[in-house]
Amino acid sequence: MNNILYFNKVTEQNFFIKEVTLEANSVGFYDLPEQKIDYILEFAKNVKKDNIAVIGIGGSSLGTEAIYNFLKSSNNYKKNLIFLDTTDPVTIENRLSKIDIKSTLFMIISKSGTTVESISIMKYIETKNRFTRENLIVITDENSPLEKFAKTRNLEVFHIPNNVGGRYSVLSPVGLVPLAVIGIDIKSLLKGAKSLKEKFFSESDNHILAEKSTFYAMNFEKYSSNCLFSYSEIFRGFNSWYVQLWAESLGKKQIHSTMNVGLTPIGLIGPTDQHSFLQLIMEGKADKTVTVIKIENFGSDISVPDITFEHLEKLDIANNIKFADLINLQADSTIEALNKIGVPLDVITLDSISEKSIGEMIYYYELLTALVARQLDINAYDQPGVELGKIILKNKMEKS
Amino acid sequence: MNNILYFNKVTEQNFFIKEVTLEANSVGFYDLPEQKIDYILEFAKNVKKDNIAVIGIGGSSLGTEAIYNFLKSSNNYKKNLIFLDTTDPVTIENRLSKIDIKSTLFMIISKSGTTVESISIMKYIETKNRFTRENLIVITDENSPLEKFAKTRNLEVFHIPNNVGGRYSVLSPVGLVPLAVIGIDIKSLLKGAKSLKEKFFSESDNHILAEKSTFYAMNFEKYSSNCLFSYSEIFRGFNSWYVQLWAESLGKKQIHSTMNVGLTPIGLIGPTDQHSFLQLIMEGKADKTVTVIKIENFGSDISVPDITFEHLEKLDIANNIKFADLINLQADSTIEALNKIGVPLDVITLDSISEKSIGEMIYYYELLTALVARQLDINAYDQPGVELGKIILKNKMEKS
Repeated sequence: MNNILYFNKVTEQNFFIKEVTLEANSVGFYDLPEQKIDYILEFAKNVKKDNIAVIGIGGSSLGTEAIYNFLKSSNNYKKNLIFLDTTDPVTIENRLSKIDIKSTLFMIISKSGTTVESISIMKYIETKNRFTRENLIVITDENSPLEKFAKTRNLEVFHIPNNVGGRYSVLSPVGLVPLAVIGIDIKSLLKGAKSLKEKFFSESDNHILAEKSTFYAMNFEKYSSNCLFSYSEIFRGFNSWYVQLWAESLGKKQIHSTMNVGLTPIGLIGPTDQHSFLQLIMEGKADKTVTVIKIENFGSDISVPDITFEHLEKLDIANNIKFADLINLQADSTIEALNKIGVPLDVITLDSISEKSIGEMIYYYELLTALVARQLDINAYDQPGVELGKIILKNKMEKS
Repeated sequence: MNNILYFNKVTEQNFFIKEVTLEANSVGFYDLPEQKIDYILEFAKNVKKDNIAVIGIGGSSLGTEAIYNFLKSSNNYKKNLIFLDTTDPVTIENRLSKIDIKSTLFMIISKSGTTVESISIMKYIETKNRFTRENLIVITDENSPLEKFAKTRNLEVFHIPNNVGGRYSVLSPVGLVPLAVIGIDIKSLLKGAKSLKEKFFSESDNHILAEKSTFYAMNFEKYSSNCLFSYSEIFRGFNSWYVQLWAESLGKKQIHSTMNVGLTPIGLIGPTDQHSFLQLIMEGKADKTVTVIKIENFGSDISVPDITFEHLEKLDIANNIKFADLINLQADSTIEALNKIGVPLDVITLDSISEKSIGEMIYYYELLTALVARQLDINAYDQPGVELGKIILKNKMEKS
């Protein structure tokens, strides 16, 4: 991974790096790259079922979907993975219609072990095929009510470390177990995360992440939205994961004041949004920063054939260009256009579509979020603002 | 469709309604509900191929995807529809691998007829199977270079009305042809649009759209982002269509000044984003309006079974509730939470998952966009800000 900043660098960020280093002693996600995973690999090796269904919402599924979607177009995974991540009845029915429930391994993932949506979906499936050790595993916090239930049926249980929050948990068993079962190389995934971590915490590094986070935090009132402009469809899941991470971590009351602060994440996909949303960035209110994400090597050689269509000769300009080069030329055009009008911009280039690349990206954004939160004086790891809705829902369910 | 506003109503919008009525004489999308479609139905009836592939980017595909995704989970369409809407090589290869190219009807859709991405994809497919009247139709402006090419191969051509812009074109042949071929009832789709139109332009109506647009325009600096909080996965495509429409239409320099104005569209899906993005709306900067979209009748009876899992007894609170009611209770909880802190909020409730409902929604948002644009003093129908990137790309392609 390579990252270039096009905005003014800020040099005094050592204080925050020290703070984050300190925080890493108590916040769990920092240590995930070094966790032991042999027991997960061993479990995955023995899964014979071809259909895998993750029951989990928000932090229990978005990260796994991000990594799976990033890799699946270029890999021929033999197993089929679906996500049951909504209470929407037509979507539940539609997704379940695509698998044979009796030959599916379900994975219920809930940190608290008491997520009403996920447990309700589990009940629905239980009526089709009773859950046993053969067709259900549980991923949850140690001693959660869900783990206690698991014991009553002798189910296999994987633990989420206590100090790892839901939206920071994709590199824990939450993501690693389903991904390993599908055939994704979780060792390389963690290696990618680890390389990013070491680069950041080693003193010789230029701390580009600290420069970027300082710029975001210092300018949070002027530049209140941050766009990820990802050049490939395979980033759709990653964009959604980023949006959750950024919005839920950075939209808060400050710790040492009552001021509400926040940065609004926006996920864009090039080239589609280059034909539309770009208009708003170019000529709308100048309140957005942009991070363009490119892939250096798509691992694909297909190119625009050297063909002329009568009356369309002007478009022969693209002939003989590889599609991989074309999409990157499009990204470069957006970069040039944005630079021309002074939009705060940076560019991340991933080497390839690999476990290592996406592992780096996940850790990069977790670290960036932690750094921005420190500088905005907010707690990146709680979510008091979603609790009110939960209480209201509970009351409504009791009445219905 | 039912729409309730929870923010202060503004009563003096007659001026803008008159302006929009006037504009409707020259801007084409207003008249689409009344167009003749017999020739499209006749064509669709005779399509025998089971795979349909739309080649088109931005306005040439997003609207079609929105309607198709909204309807497909509840309908068993016999034909398969894919979209080739990107230059991303792994996505092109992956999507093409899912169809048999030789038994596919391709539809190339380009208003100008000179979209380099789409023509390049067309060339790539031409090398697999030469295009003839049997396997390719063309949807484009009259006399475009693409239509001229079509004549050299005797292809069937459908015209986009000259005064209908790309992002407003879904109810023209751009969307109607592929949707009719798949088996979607385009007559009901247009009927939905027409009923919304008549409701708006009839004087007896309360002009809720005008009240809403006036609020958005008057408060564009304070409330610079507008969130669609759509309660069902089937709105994902609709959200993307809305984001394009809103961003590209409303991010502009004013007509009578040089000021850059704009409103930032954000597409959210409940209940997923209720677990994450809601935090930012509740406790971040108070710069967002929210529109919650609900479906009254999902046409699904599945419910949470009356089962108790040991140690999870507390979650029996959801037992016997239909999933359709559960997701709507979740929506209502979000509405209540947002109302409590005074977020400018409105709620749209669709009767059912039907052509009529989505036709209403499309027209509702096109009309709303036109109204906001008038009041912000901008041209909703051009996109000067995306041209610079196109010129840069052309230069880059020439050099490569």
